[in-house]
Amino acid sequence: MNALSLDTVVLSPDRKELLILDQTLLPNEIRVLRLHRMEDIREAIYALRVRGAPAIGVCAGYAMALAGAQAESTDKDGFFAELRSAKELLASARPTAVNLFWALDRMERTALENREKSIDRLREILFAEADAIYREDIAISRAIGEIGFSLLRPGDGILTHCNAGTLATAKYGTATAPMYIALERGMRDFRVYCDETRPLLQGARLTAYELSSAGIDTTLLCDNAAASLMAAGKISIIFVGCDRVARNGDAANKIGTSAVAILAKHYGIPFYVCAPSSTIDLSLSGGTEIPIEQRPGEEVTDLWYEKPMAPRGIGVYNPAFDVTDHALITGIITEKGLCTAPFEEAFSRLGI
Amino acid sequence: MNALSLDTVVLSPDRKELLILDQTLLPNEIRVLRLHRMEDIREAIYALRVRGAPAIGVCAGYAMALAGAQAESTDKDGFFAELRSAKELLASARPTAVNLFWALDRMERTALENREKSIDRLREILFAEADAIYREDIAISRAIGEIGFSLLRPGDGILTHCNAGTLATAKYGTATAPMYIALERGMRDFRVYCDETRPLLQGARLTAYELSSAGIDTTLLCDNAAASLMAAGKISIIFVGCDRVARNGDAANKIGTSAVAILAKHYGIPFYVCAPSSTIDLSLSGGTEIPIEQRPGEEVTDLWYEKPMAPRGIGVYNPAFDVTDHALITGIITEKGLCTAPFEEAFSRLGI
Repeated sequence: MNALSLDTVVLSPDRKELLILDQTLLPNEIRVLRLHRMEDIREAIYALRVRGAPAIGVCAGYAMALAGAQAESTDKDGFFAELRSAKELLASARPTAVNLFWALDRMERTALENREKSIDRLREILFAEADAIYREDIAISRAIGEIGFSLLRPGDGILTHCNAGTLATAKYGTATAPMYIALERGMRDFRVYCDETRPLLQGARLTAYELSSAGIDTTLLCDNAAASLMAAGKISIIFVGCDRVARNGDAANKIGTSAVAILAKHYGIPFYVCAPSSTIDLSLSGGTEIPIEQRPGEEVTDLWYEKPMAPRGIGVYNPAFDVTDHALITGIITEKGLCTAPFEEAFSRLGI
Repeated sequence: MNALSLDTVVLSPDRKELLILDQTLLPNEIRVLRLHRMEDIREAIYALRVRGAPAIGVCAGYAMALAGAQAESTDKDGFFAELRSAKELLASARPTAVNLFWALDRMERTALENREKSIDRLREILFAEADAIYREDIAISRAIGEIGFSLLRPGDGILTHCNAGTLATAKYGTATAPMYIALERGMRDFRVYCDETRPLLQGARLTAYELSSAGIDTTLLCDNAAASLMAAGKISIIFVGCDRVARNGDAANKIGTSAVAILAKHYGIPFYVCAPSSTIDLSLSGGTEIPIEQRPGEEVTDLWYEKPMAPRGIGVYNPAFDVTDHALITGIITEKGLCTAPFEEAFSRLGI
């Protein structure tokens, strides 16, 4: 089983259900959920059954198309009210990943721009727009992969954190795209080190799984061992994904990413953020404006374990994301090109 | 249950067994092992049932006393051969913590210095020496605690990594001693943040348990969240333990410690290593000479979990320790005084 052949999130052929690979069960079980109720799709996003900023965007696009198909109103106002209600429900699932809001806004805007069309026609337009988001996502990942691949050298030791892999996108991933492109080009002389990424273990369960299943030389480590690897000279380049980037280049990504960036700076290792341009939120001047999701302490003390691993009732600090200061980032790789500091100018130059 | 009242490692009243609190079962179960066979004591050290450099030293001292009591030889040469064989078996349990070798050497040396005495008398001398190591360990922890306490300010947020607590020593701990001394002095206006410390979770299972049971305001976090806490201004001082310190001040401690030190430097937070002078190995010029124990990958992929959390057969990088560069260390707190750079001179001035 090559994980690249798995579909993270797709529409059923009859266009009535969303098929979501339940990532909370990996790598032990491959189960595909068939969802059509908005509440269930929201739950799948909240519970990280589908996760990764780009995949959440694709999921949100198809969910809005399903909401359009399911709308019971026969008048336009009612139809748009139902769409908006689905949008608000889905938007409440997770606060940090901007792709969720980006995709929801894009779907709503597309409908509003075609307001004069019939409801049946609007439904078709929504499915077409969701399909476009899906196709664009694959093209974006490939474009990021091409740029990242151009930065690779034979013998590289690549570190990545969390899963910005094919499972976090429609295909190829963002941080993993350079590795998959390398494979396609016949370059096999590199090794990938995956931070396990506590508490949800996306690095162990997902990244190590998808890379090794694709035949890439993959080594897993605890998050706290990355400094030791860098000190030993094993890491030559770092690729991570991101959930939201501010105008100045500050990047929110999975908790622990900023620590990797600080270590990379200390050891002089280039640190690249792989960011579809939909992830870049020019409305925010800096990282302090990015809302950070706080998640339940049980994810740290109980989840996955046979028995609780901490005393009952202990206080837990469990933010899902942190913000990497732009000064620590060597480059932000978008599908439109590689951006280096000053990032605001670079974004502008690329038309982002 | 106040964890300070638990005995980490003590001799049974009849002096026939070592009573070891099995720390692999905490915080879910309090089970005391009664061991007398050297193989079983070695296994308890290897499997981290007893752990923490000072506690391993105390354990090794009593184990050597038991080996003397159990020796079957009636002649001196045979008696010393049996002692040496016990020493070699115990020394093979773990390679990094110097206290293990320090305590074993001290016990053997004591016996050799009293070689002219009768075997019965030698046995008494060995028990007395092990008792001395035990009592000195408590005094050392208290002395480190006094110095660390003098560095605390009201409202401090203290970060610690792994468990250099009362469970890692005979009592009080090293990195936790300042906190327990603060409690004894009636200072309660501080909060301790505990890195959970993958893969063995000593921070979650042991440090969070012992501090909260003593009534200290304790918060648990994943190792990768420490940078986020520092960025938020929540951490004002850091105390960690150590397993071996080289002459130049490079300090080996639990994997992840060097990352904490690099983050502390980045955020301008003072970083203190709490080190009984027995931990300082003047025979080593720098940290690269400290052997680092590599442990099985299953500790990362399988241990504690209901199901494996990584794909089968994945490569794992799992060193038990890393080395913190002396340039990152604000001070090394020994029972003889606070050492600052240049450390070799400071050690010498304190007669270490």
